[in-house]
Formats: sequence, C-alpha cells, structure tokens
Amino acid sequence: MLVVGELINTSRKNIKEAVEAKNAEYIQQIAKDQVEAGADYLDINCGTRVYDEEEIMAWLVDTVREVVQVPLCIDSPNPKALAVGLERAGDSTLMVNSISAEKERFEQVLPLVKKYNTKVVALCMDDAGIPETAEDRLRVSDQLIVDLLAADISQDQIYLDPLIKPLGVNNQFGVEVLDCVRTLSLRYPEIHFICGLSNISFGLPERKLLNRVFMVMNITAGMDGFILDPLDQSIMSMLGAAWTLIGKDDYCMNYLKGVRAGRIKA
Amino acid sequence: MLVVGELINTSRKNIKEAVEAKNAEYIQQIAKDQVEAGADYLDINCGTRVYDEEEIMAWLVDTVREVVQVPLCIDSPNPKALAVGLERAGDSTLMVNSISAEKERFEQVLPLVKKYNTKVVALCMDDAGIPETAEDRLRVSDQLIVDLLAADISQDQIYLDPLIKPLGVNNQFGVEVLDCVRTLSLRYPEIHFICGLSNISFGLPERKLLNRVFMVMNITAGMDGFILDPLDQSIMSMLGAAWTLIGKDDYCMNYLKGVRAGRIKA
Repeated sequence: MLVVGELINTSRKNIKEAVEAKNAEYIQQIAKDQVEAGADYLDINCGTRVYDEEEIMAWLVDTVREVVQVPLCIDSPNPKALAVGLERAGDSTLMVNSISAEKERFEQVLPLVKKYNTKVVALCMDDAGIPETAEDRLRVSDQLIVDLLAADISQDQIYLDPLIKPLGVNNQFGVEVLDCVRTLSLRYPEIHFICGLSNISFGLPERKLLNRVFMVMNITAGMDGFILDPLDQSIMSMLGAAWTLIGKDDYCMNYLKGVRAGRIKA
Repeated sequence: MLVVGELINTSRKNIKEAVEAKNAEYIQQIAKDQVEAGADYLDINCGTRVYDEEEIMAWLVDTVREVVQVPLCIDSPNPKALAVGLERAGDSTLMVNSISAEKERFEQVLPLVKKYNTKVVALCMDDAGIPETAEDRLRVSDQLIVDLLAADISQDQIYLDPLIKPLGVNNQFGVEVLDCVRTLSLRYPEIHFICGLSNISFGLPERKLLNRVFMVMNITAGMDGFILDPLDQSIMSMLGAAWTLIGKDDYCMNYLKGVRAGRIKA
C-alpha cells in the first residue's frame, strides 16, 4: 500500500498563502505532519502558479527536503516543472504525477521517468480526453500500459490512475472503476493502481463518507495506492483495516502497530 | 440490500434480563428502534434458553408482533423452535436462520422453508463442521446450493452465509470469504449472501472498525445481506454509501433520502 500525502498543493488556500508569503515553516510543518501520520510519499503540486511554476516547484522541493526525507511525488501537467522538481528532489525513488496517453505528454514525460527511474502515475486519458464508456476506459488504460512496457518501464513502476468520475452524474461510474481495476490487475499482476478519491462524491452530500467507503471498495478490487489527506484519521484507519483484511499484512502486524500508536481507531 | 437487526437475542445481557422479567415493553422498544433505524428484518433468537426455547420464542414473536410488522428472521438451530416462531410470525415473507449441509438439520429445516415459503440463511457447514480450506468452503457451499435448488427452493430465496472465521487466526480468512462470494455470485446470479460480521475481528483490537470495513469489502464482492446492529449509525452510514457506490441505488435516491433523514452521516 502506498499513501501519497496530497496537502502540499497550491490549489489549497492555506498553501497558496504560504507560498505567496514564502512561509517555509508552514510548508515544513505540513510536510512533517503528513509523514508522521503515515504518508509514504508527499505530493508537491503548484500547478496553479501558471507564470512561475518552475521557480515555486524548486522552492517547495527545497523547503520540504530540509525537514523530511520521504520520497516526493512531483505533480504537474508541465514537463518543465516536473524536470525541475525531480532534479532537486534527491536520489530516493521518486514518483512522477503524471503521464497519460496524450501523445505530446507521453513523449515529453517518458524521458523524465527513464532518466530518474521513477514510479509514474499513468492517467487513463488520451488526446480524445477522459474515456466516456467502460470499454473505452479499459482500452485506453490497456494501451497506455502496453506503451509504457514497450518503452522499458517495468510493471512495478506503473501506478495506473483510472480517473474517477462523479457518481452523481451516473451511478455506474463507481462500478466501472472497480471493474477496470479488477480486470487490469488480473491481466498485469505487477502493476499498481492509484487514485485521488474526491471526484467520486462531487455534487453529493457527506462527501468524506463516500470517499472513504469507495477507497475500501477499490482496495477490494486491487487498488494499492491513494493520493489523500493522511491527517484524516478516519480514512487512514479504514485504510489500515482494509489492508489487513485483504490479507496483505503478515500477522496483522501493521494493523496492530497502528492501533498501538493511536493512528488506527474505530 | 437486506439488513437483519440482530439485537433481539438472549445471548445479549439486556435481552436475557428482559426475557426473564417478561419485560415486553423493553423488547418492543428494541424492536421499534431497529425498524426506525432501517432494519428490513428483525432476528429473533433465544437459543440460550435450552429448556424453554419454544415457549420463549412464542412470547418474543407475539411481543414483537404487537408493535412492528416488518418480517421476522426466526433464528435457531432447533427445528421445533423454528416451527413455533414461524407459525406465530404472520404471513409476511419470513426468513429461517438457518439451514446447513448437516444431514439431519437439512432434512428437518427444509420442510419449514417450504411450508412457510420463506427466505433461508444457508450456512456453509456440513457434518464435518466448518470447512477448513477455501476449496472446501466453496465445495460445501456449492453442494448446499445445489441441494436447495433440487428441493425446489429458488435462488432468490437463498441467503448463503459463508461463515466468517477470525482474521487473527489466519490473515487469509477475509480474502477467502470475498473470493467465495465473488465466485458463487457469478455462478448463481440470483442467490443472495448474508453474514454476521463480528467473527472476523475476534481477538483483534478496534473490532468495530474491522467489522465495518469488512462489510464494505463484502458488498464489493457481491454480498447483499447483513445481520448487524442497525442502531450503530456508523455501520449503517457505510452500508448506505456502499450500496449507492456499487451502482444499485437509482439516482442515488436512497443515499440522498438517508442523508436528509439524518440516518447517513460521515
């Protein structure tokens, strides 16, 4: 299981303000809190800074690196910002967020994945956009995996993101994601799956409940990575419980450790 | 989705005392509370009353019937107590809890299921006990389904209970249940699955968390019935969320209704 802490993102008001004020201490506290809460990776996203994204990416990575040594997930649709972040993030196994089946993006991001030998989030979308049907989702995902493998990226480096769409728009959108994950995890037993959860509940009430429950359903289907807020103890507790229930936690040791440390609670 | 309220059971201290004192009002309040909280069926179990189970079953059914008209789940390993309960429970679609592949039990309970045309909980155990391995679990379950269908019980009447064993004993026990449910639901698309959840967490801390999360995982695998405490708002909220996420809730109407009524909360 891989937890990517999502909080360092300039689309969040408090991070936006901290970046504007160059408040390194605040950013560093959020970084430390996420690691303390169990994040394996920290996402670094400043995609809202259209005019100085590269400069802010450099500052964020340097700032975070002063206080935590967990690997970083460098998050941008902009290959130049990815390159800056990867270059400064050090020699742990980094993660690139993200590549996709869009032709130009694939060609520009692939060399970075190879140069830094990173894990890579592979978004299920191509130049036609996000697939409309379940069949198209599977076709686009499969082709993207085939193309990455052909480029000598290993299955174990790939974190396929099926791109979740809102349940409120179509009540089959949840099931379609689960089916996609189940099918591809049987077809490619060594690849990983990852997603952000909040899209599923867009437009519906009690969103956190839907997000958490959908996370458990995805773990059941074979997903093993999530980009989430690790400071949400409820979602982290459910994640710990699901991981032990799915049989991946020898002697339930991680579960028991989490309970003893107070991180996992009913 | 079918929720069987589990609270009227003489193995629970408060129910034991109410039965001893013939405190009808207390039993009736528990019955009403469970229905109010969303129970579709109420389980009636006085199996701890070895010497007067039939008499107590009659009293409990009569007592509950004075205040609620939801169908009852008559719960006993004793066919005589089942017969008494079914006879007095009225003409709604009742549920028998339970039949199994044990030869004598099968032969004695089957006529009651046919006479009253009930739903029936079918326990995955035979005269050798609860199956030890995943293969045996599937074999015993499948044979039990085959035998029930051969006796003119319809798939839709059958609620297979895979019998959950503690994860603390073997960390594959959860996955084995999920695999069994997934396999049989593909093989027999019209049968139902049901279970009590508490065994999974036996011997582990934060049991309610494990029970709730395992419920969501079972829903993902195809289970559609649970014998649980409907007064536990957290488990009922997760059940409502999972049912809408699995695509069974048209326009998310039941979810939205549950949220508006305050029954479903993050």
